[in-house]
Order: sequence, then structure tokens, then C-alpha cells
Amino acid sequence: MDFQGKKLINDPNAVVTEFIEGLVETYPGLQYLDGFPEVKVVLRADVSASTYDKVAIISGGGSGHEPAHAGFVGEGMLTAAICGDVFASPTVDAILAGIRAVTGPKGCLLIVTNYTGDRLNFGLAAEQAKSEGYDIKTVIVGDDCALPPPRGIAGRRGLAGTILVLKVLPTSFTLLKTDIALKYQDIEASGLLSDPFRSFLKEVAGAAAAAGLSLADVAAEAKRASEVVGTMGVALSVCTLPGQATSDRLGPGKMELGLGIHGEPGADVADIQPVDVIVSHVLKQILSPETNYVPITRGNRVVLMINGLGATPLMELMIASGKAVPKLQLEHGLAVDRVYTGSFMTSLDMAGFSISIMKADQTILQFLDAPTRAPAWPVGVDGSHPPARIPVPLPPVRSTKSEDALGRPLQLNQVGQTLEAAIEAAANAVIDLRDSLNEWDSKAGDGDCGSTMYKGAAAILEDMRNYPLNDVAETVNEIGSSIGRVMGGTSGIIYKIFCKAAYAQMKASTQTVEKRLAEALEAAISAVSKYGGANAGYRTLLDALIPASAVLKERLDAGDNPVTAFLLSSEAALAGAESTIHMQAQAGRSTYISGEILASVPDPGAMAAAAWYRAAALAVKDKYQAS
Amino acid sequence: MDFQGKKLINDPNAVVTEFIEGLVETYPGLQYLDGFPEVKVVLRADVSASTYDKVAIISGGGSGHEPAHAGFVGEGMLTAAICGDVFASPTVDAILAGIRAVTGPKGCLLIVTNYTGDRLNFGLAAEQAKSEGYDIKTVIVGDDCALPPPRGIAGRRGLAGTILVLKVLPTSFTLLKTDIALKYQDIEASGLLSDPFRSFLKEVAGAAAAAGLSLADVAAEAKRASEVVGTMGVALSVCTLPGQATSDRLGPGKMELGLGIHGEPGADVADIQPVDVIVSHVLKQILSPETNYVPITRGNRVVLMINGLGATPLMELMIASGKAVPKLQLEHGLAVDRVYTGSFMTSLDMAGFSISIMKADQTILQFLDAPTRAPAWPVGVDGSHPPARIPVPLPPVRSTKSEDALGRPLQLNQVGQTLEAAIEAAANAVIDLRDSLNEWDSKAGDGDCGSTMYKGAAAILEDMRNYPLNDVAETVNEIGSSIGRVMGGTSGIIYKIFCKAAYAQMKASTQTVEKRLAEALEAAISAVSKYGGANAGYRTLLDALIPASAVLKERLDAGDNPVTAFLLSSEAALAGAESTIHMQAQAGRSTYISGEILASVPDPGAMAAAAWYRAAALAVKDKYQAS
Repeated sequence: MDFQGKKLINDPNAVVTEFIEGLVETYPGLQYLDGFPEVKVVLRADVSASTYDKVAIISGGGSGHEPAHAGFVGEGMLTAAICGDVFASPTVDAILAGIRAVTGPKGCLLIVTNYTGDRLNFGLAAEQAKSEGYDIKTVIVGDDCALPPPRGIAGRRGLAGTILVLKVLPTSFTLLKTDIALKYQDIEASGLLSDPFRSFLKEVAGAAAAAGLSLADVAAEAKRASEVVGTMGVALSVCTLPGQATSDRLGPGKMELGLGIHGEPGADVADIQPVDVIVSHVLKQILSPETNYVPITRGNRVVLMINGLGATPLMELMIASGKAVPKLQLEHGLAVDRVYTGSFMTSLDMAGFSISIMKADQTILQFLDAPTRAPAWPVGVDGSHPPARIPVPLPPVRSTKSEDALGRPLQLNQVGQTLEAAIEAAANAVIDLRDSLNEWDSKAGDGDCGSTMYKGAAAILEDMRNYPLNDVAETVNEIGSSIGRVMGGTSGIIYKIFCKAAYAQMKASTQTVEKRLAEALEAAISAVSKYGGANAGYRTLLDALIPASAVLKERLDAGDNPVTAFLLSSEAALAGAESTIHMQAQAGRSTYISGEILASVPDPGAMAAAAWYRAAALAVKDKYQAS
Repeated sequence: MDFQGKKLINDPNAVVTEFIEGLVETYPGLQYLDGFPEVKVVLRADVSASTYDKVAIISGGGSGHEPAHAGFVGEGMLTAAICGDVFASPTVDAILAGIRAVTGPKGCLLIVTNYTGDRLNFGLAAEQAKSEGYDIKTVIVGDDCALPPPRGIAGRRGLAGTILVLKVLPTSFTLLKTDIALKYQDIEASGLLSDPFRSFLKEVAGAAAAAGLSLADVAAEAKRASEVVGTMGVALSVCTLPGQATSDRLGPGKMELGLGIHGEPGADVADIQPVDVIVSHVLKQILSPETNYVPITRGNRVVLMINGLGATPLMELMIASGKAVPKLQLEHGLAVDRVYTGSFMTSLDMAGFSISIMKADQTILQFLDAPTRAPAWPVGVDGSHPPARIPVPLPPVRSTKSEDALGRPLQLNQVGQTLEAAIEAAANAVIDLRDSLNEWDSKAGDGDCGSTMYKGAAAILEDMRNYPLNDVAETVNEIGSSIGRVMGGTSGIIYKIFCKAAYAQMKASTQTVEKRLAEALEAAISAVSKYGGANAGYRTLLDALIPASAVLKERLDAGDNPVTAFLLSSEAALAGAESTIHMQAQAGRSTYISGEILASVPDPGAMAAAAWYRAAALAVKDKYQAS
């Protein structure tokens, strides 16, 4: 097995049969005829020729264009798809087998892409089927707009526009009702609905049966659609046939314009351009009044298909769609009614896309919008567009905010005074510890813990004059904002999460100040742990704060004086921070540092947390002792 | 602009905003917040925070994973998707904007893939939103099974399994009913339905409103789902960031196992294997009892997702699905209830796929099957599987066939005798012309026209003893079979189409023998022209047959003796064939030959047709003169 062109396959000669096996595993609504390797036919699991009372629709061709055609089998699109080998027309026997499997008394429409092999094989199968008594019509689709006319006997190639033709068939008209009938059955099973259901189901079933259209009608619509669609492709790479080496035809920085879908060379090779320019060029070529390939003129309505060729990410296809729409509107004076973006008819692993434009009218739009069970037809593309952009919503008005919460109060109450002292002490403790923090961090991290924490502390001291200090919750929230303003990196966002979580918890609680603070600490730790991913013992700030929170809660629950509880809690914070010297890092850069080096220093983040917590506790004690 | 890694884009820094613009052009059900470039949020066009009465579901993360997450916005999946820049977490402001835009009184669930940046930014936004009064819960998904535990603070990466988690949410439970209600409105507009409709609509609307579930319920379900899904990836190429050069990390013939979706190196590099072997390896790793990442054991039910990484064609993904299902069943003893194959969470243009396995139960299947309007969720994947293979149908029994049609009759009637003489003469005429045909063809084609036609003529002479000669139609059909048996290439299939079309026409007609033959000739010419693509003047056999058919019809309509009409018609065939000497080729290899060379010879195909037609006419004349 040769892997010159890398592929995720097994036997290069079995790719089509293995594809079909995976397809039917994925889609329970599809089946295949048990005639591998010659007969490779995918068909609707819910259709049997003997009972099918609608026009059967069959298409197909060489494989390598997935999801075409097998992915378009389903109520509302194809009844069966005939798959040839890669880039090779299916055999007459395979086509005949497909016709026989799904064609009932209403007959069968064959939709054939314009390649000699497909035309002859489908043609012979059609004539053979007719001689067996089947009613058969054939429509050949050639939508290529890349080459100038006339093309003689070969004509224009069939490209992705064929997929639009497959969708524009009156047979899908009845689907809406059967679709609802089926879903309705699900609902009935849920036991939620009652009597009107039965009358409804009857009515719907009747309407669906009555709406079956004739083969002549369906063929006429397909023919009409095939005459109003044009396609042109652009590729950045050539495709690799399974088991073969990749051609190096296209050099770096080059693209091919007007290519087919079988690896054949394009009409032109050019330097790659921004996709904007490429889209403009392709649209002009398709709509050229000189070739007059599609009867589309200014003021017309159209639908647009951007079709990936196999290896082009959806992001790039969407960018092309986003550019093509305004160009069609502004440069060509067309109304764009629908946009289909995706990989519909590919060329193995080719990078690039094709653009198809179909002239639209009310009938065509109705068919395009009709529901289908075909897996590869896009969903959510029907209907008219609301405004695409809506304004960014403003933050909700804080109606619950007290007067006190808007900047520093004229007079600080006792809570405000205590809080001010605590914040000042805490910030200064962090500032004092800057060099030690940096030193510890230089052993285990990037050495800037002290500097980063210093920035936050300094910002708090600066902003403090505007804190609404009589309101603890709002002040904690403002501290978070000060930190967010200056502290970058993970530690900045961790502390901001800490403050926001504490604030949200305090706002939601109606307990005493000390209980609210204890709850807030717990909530803040929980948020930091959840979003930061650390737990106790991970050598982080949580190793100071988790024991502090536990002791605080325990002492308050035990009925201790709040100041005492806070002091005891701060001792636990210090002890916890110091214990990090024995811990293996689990987070950040420290995880790459050997245990020996780590064992010589405590975690700077934990030490910083313990320092500000301890300083705040001491300041509170001083305040209450003084008062 | 640098195109080292070929991409169909414009400004590498604008790919995400341009993607979103294309996305909303494609899907009218989606909108975006007008806050580019910072705020890149895609949301449901039918949801407004002020009136939304269900739990909002938000996810997101770095871009480059399209269709994730924006393609999963729609009723039944996400209410909004927050898009960061390529491979970069969205900002807190963008996440907050999304929350504010869609969150109503029922609250909002954030589903976050497990990357530090996403966790911290979504976490801070969640806490901020809580402090604004929103009810928010967060579930973090880490489904990677590539690396051995423990992973410390970083934990397991969030991969494509996240998409399954997004689908398994009770909020989608109500969709079935609203979906029907909406479709039902369409039907009402069609005027087909009557009174039961109104009661139905009322009932459905009531049921949907009643079924709204709480944030706690939805979050619990998401958490439960996130704990029963595992994923592992395989890549054949690394991805190329827009505007950057492609890394050459992966050499030819190599693949990477256990990679992430941000271009980070995989756990292992190995030689490429057949996809069979790769799938086996990955399944074993995901289901490993040692890591015990997913609680799946023999006898369990599972769903399978094969997720393309951006540049892998659907054919290869389907092949992997087709192989994974029997392996899960036979090697791991699991029942596979659903298969999802497609590109759901990609990594720019990376070639490869990931496999996800989720433990399934009735509730999970119900959610997975529930309808959704999210464009990128696959359709047609729900429900149980009928037998995937059905037998190739046999040709219909020819009940209309007369006894005479089964082999040579015991006694030839006058028609049979005439037909025998005509066929013999026609075949011998072609045989006699072999060398001339080859010579003419060597000037304009590949020189084998005489030899190919000889084969057909010889086969006819050989098979003739079994032709049902008293039945003209059946005999023509048998001639087609003789030709098909020995004549290869285009001319073989063209003549087979000719005979099949003539046969089908004769079977359908009840006219006199001569009129039926004239009609059959016309139908046969029409089929050859349609499927072969040639018209009069294209330098093909039609240039003999079209004038012959015209004269035959004209003379019969004028009331001429049929034998005379046939003779006159055969003169027209000869004249027509000889006139090809002045024609420019339009078909086949002759199109590449200069006009000068062509002008020295007639078209061999036309001459052959004229020869057998003329010989048959003369034989008929002799027969009637003799009798």
C-alpha cells in the first residue's frame, strides 16, 4: 500500500464500497443494494419499487465527489444514487439495478452530469429500462461557465450546480405534509396530545397522496432549472487519487481557475489573490454577457452556492459567501435570496471552491426551501433574513445599588472605617513583600509574581479614595475592577474572579457582615478553584485561602467573636502558605521545575495571599481594640 | 499579505469577523452582535433576552474550529456562541455581551471547553454576570483520552465530544412541539387544512411552554453527559494559521496520534497505517480500562462521532465510521445506537479525524434525536437502523413477450425471412468494409473503426441463428445484445443505445411493420443524439442516419411503397455519409485533427452506418422482388 498522497483509507480499490458502508451506518434512512463491487447503489430505506407512488429521482456518476451524490438521497431529493468508482462512470448494470429498485408506476427521472461516460451509461440504462416497461426521462446538466462556447459535442461540464437542480423538483412538494405527519407520530407517542391529532393525521396523509406529480412535470422542472444555473471553480491544490501520488502541477503561491472536479487542469493558472478578488473574478465570469451562459440580468433574483472542493475549511467557504453576497448585490444588481455554503460536490481532497449562481423565482425558492431528509442538504438556510447585526447590549441598570455604592460616601460609618484600614494594610503588606515574592517566583516561575501583585496593590491604594467603603460588597467589587485594570496574566484574572464571586455572593446574602464575608470567601475560593482548575495541595494561593476559609467558618459557627475568628483564620492562612514549600507544583510553569528546587521556597502566590489576609485581620483587630 | 500556507482569505487578522459575516448570510436564523472586532458573538435571531423564557445555553472559545461553535447556534442547541480570535479565548467583554443578549429569567448555562484561557475568561464573565443579577451555571468539558492521567491542574482537553454534550440538554426537549407548531403554520398558509389545526396549535403551544426546564436541571444533564464521553484524534498534517507558514513537523508517511485541536503536537508520531488499524488503536485507547476515562464497559450502549479536522474528505470519514461500528460491536461488545460522521469541531485545515464515544441511555438518545435548528448538527441520523443491505432486484419478468420472442422460431414467416436476409446483408456489408473503415479512421481517429465494427457484425452473424426473427422488435433487441457482448468503447455503447431505443419504441407502438421501423429509427437517432451529444453535421454516424430517417418518414407519409421508401432512404444515408468529408469534427479524437487531413476522408462511422443500412434495403428489395 502506497501512501504518497496521505489518506485515511484501507484498500485504494475499495474506497467507494467502504464509504457506502460508513454512510449507511451513519444514516439509518439509507440502504444500499447488495451488489458490491459492481453495483454500488444507495437508496432510500423507505422506498420500494413495488409500492412507490411518486416519481423516482435518480442521479449519480463517478465517486470522489462526496457527499454527492449518495448524501443527497432522501425524501425531497434523490430516491437513489448510483456510485461509480472514483472519477469513473457507474456501469449500465448498476444504473439499471438502481432504476429497478425504486421505480414504480409513476416512472423515474435520471439527472445526469454532462460527461460522456455518464451520458452513455445512463443513456443505455434508460433505454434498457424503457424496454422493460419503465417510464424513464433523462435530464443532462452542464453548468460549467469556465470555458468559452462553443464546446462542440462535449458541451459544458456538470458541476455543483447539479445539486441545486436536484433540489428543484416538484416531487419534494409533498414532503412538508408527510414530514409533519411523521413528527406528529412522535408527539402522539409522548402522550401529550389528544383527539385532534387523529383527524389531522388523516387529513395530512390524504393531502400528501393527492399531491404526487407526473414524470413529465418533474422532468420539465429539472430541465428548466438546469438552464438557469452556472458554476465556476477555483483550486489551490490538485486532488490525490487513492493509492496514487499527488501531482505537483500547481506550484506554491499559485491557483487554478475554471477547473473541473476530476483533477483535470483548469482554464487558467494565476498567482493566489485575496479571496475578495477571486470571488469578483469568478462572479464576473459566470455572469458574463458575452458567454451568456446563464440568463441572469440586473434586477433578477438569484441563489448562491459556495461549494468546497474537499479540503477547504468551512471558515474559508463562509468568508467567500460573505464577500460574494454584497458583490452580487452591488456590482451585479442582483437580489440574493438564498445562500448555500458547504461542501456539496467535492473532488477528493482538493483545496478550493466553486461558485454556483441560479436564477430564482417563487417556484424555485419554494422547492429549494421544501424540507428534505437528504442528509447533505443544508438546514436552516430557508426563509428571509432578519437584520444580521444587532447592537451589543448594555449592562443592566443596577437598580438595586444603594446611594452609598456610588463612590466614597461623605462620611464613613464603622464598617467603612474598618474596611478602609483593612484594605490599606492588606495592600501595603503585598507591596512590602514584592522582592521576596519575586525571588521565590524566580526559582519556580517567571519571577514576576511580586511585581504583578505590586501593581494590583498600588492600583487599589490609588483607587481607594473612590471606593463606596460603607458597602462591603460594592467595595469588594471595586477592588476587582482596580485589579483588572492593571494586573495582566493569569493572576490578574484569578483575583478578578475572586472579587467578582465574593461580590455576587455578598449581594445575594442577607446575613451579618461577618457571616457574609465568610460565605463570600468560600464562594470566591470555589470560583477560583473551578475556573482555575486548582485544588488544595496544588501549590497555589488556594493553599493559603482554603485553610483560612475553613477556620473562619468553623470559629464563627462555634460562636467566636468575629475579630478573633478572623485572626485565627489568618494564622491558618500563613501556616497553609508556608506548607507549600513541601508541595509538588500542579499548575503553570512550576510543573516543569524539579521538586528539589521547589522544596527550597514556598509558593509566592500563596505567600502573597496569606500576607494580605493576615494584614487585613490585624488591621481589623487594631480598629476594634481602638474603638 | 503572505500566502505561504495557501488560504482563500483576505486579511489574516479579519478571518473570524469575515467568517461570521458569511455565516449570517447563509443562515437567516442567525445574527451577530455588532461589536466587531472585539465582540464576536453569534446568536439566535429568534431570541431576545427580555422575552426569552427558557434556559439560555452559551458556548464558545477560540476560532479555527468551524463549524464549532457558531454553527451549533439554533433552537435545540446553543442560544449564542462566543467566538475568540483563531485559537485564542474570547474576551470577558465578548462573553458578557453574549450572556446579556440572550439570558432571561430562567438563567444561562455556560459550556466551556477545558482550556485555561477559556475557563478563566468564561469564569470571570460568569461571576460578573452573576453580580449583575443573572442566574449562571458553568460546566467544563474535558473529553481528551490521549494522555495518561493524572493531568494535574490542566486536566483533559475539551475536544469534539463537547459537541455531543451541547446536544444532550433538556432545553431541546421542548423543540419537537414548537417545531411542529411552526411547520403547521406553513401548512395552514397552504389552505389545505381546516379546523383540527387550530386546536392542535393551541395544544402544542401550551405543552411547549409547560415543558421549560430549570437551569439546575439543564446543568446537571450537561455535567452528566460530559462525564461519559471520551475523544482522541489522529492527524496526517498540521494546520496552518492564517497568514503564517505551515509547520513541517509531520514528515511524509507519518501521522500524529492523540493531538489537540490547536496545532499542538500529538502524544505520538507513527507511520501511517490503514485506517482500519488506526481506528482499532484509537478505540482501544478511548475505552482503555487502565485510564478509565469513560465509564463504558461490555454490554453498554454507545454513540459514535467521527469528526473531521478540517481538510479530510467525507469519503475518508465515512470509511472510518464504517470500520469503527463493527469494531465497537465485535471487539468491545458495545451496541452502537447512533453514528455522527462529519466535520463538527475542526482545526483549520488539518487533515485527520477524531473519534468520540459517548455512553448512551434512553434519555441521552432522546436528546440527541430531538430536532434542532442548529445548522451544523447532522440530520437524518436519528432512529433505528433497518437492514443496511438489500438484494439487487432482478429484471422484471417479460410477461408481454410472445412465444415467438424466445429464440429462433421453428418456421420463419415472411417478415422473418426478410429480416434474416436484411441482417445478413447488413452484417456482411460492414465486414466487407473493414479495411476501408480502418484506413479512414487511421487518418482521423485511432484506426480501429473497421475492426470494432467487424466484431459487432461477426457476432450478429454468429448469434443470428437464435434470433426470434418473426418478431422484429425482439430481434432488434437481440442485435443490441450481440453488439454489447463484443463491441467495446463508445461505438459499442452507442449502437447498443440505438438498438435498445429502437426496441423500446417498437414495443410501445401498434403501427404497421414499416411505420414501426420508421418510428424506431427516429427514436433510436434521438437517443443516440441525446446521450452521445452529437447532432447533424458533427461528422458522426448520425450524418448518415438522420437524412435516411427523414426520407423514410417523408416517403411513407407520402404513401410510397415501403420497399421503395426504404431504398430511397438508403440512398440518402449514403449521400449523407459521403458528405462528412466536408465536415469539421466535433466529437472524439477527430476534434484535434486539422481540417485539411479530415477533408481527405469521410467519417468512417457514418460510412459504416450507410453501408449496413444500404445493404439491408437492397436485401429487402431483392426479397420482395423474388417473392
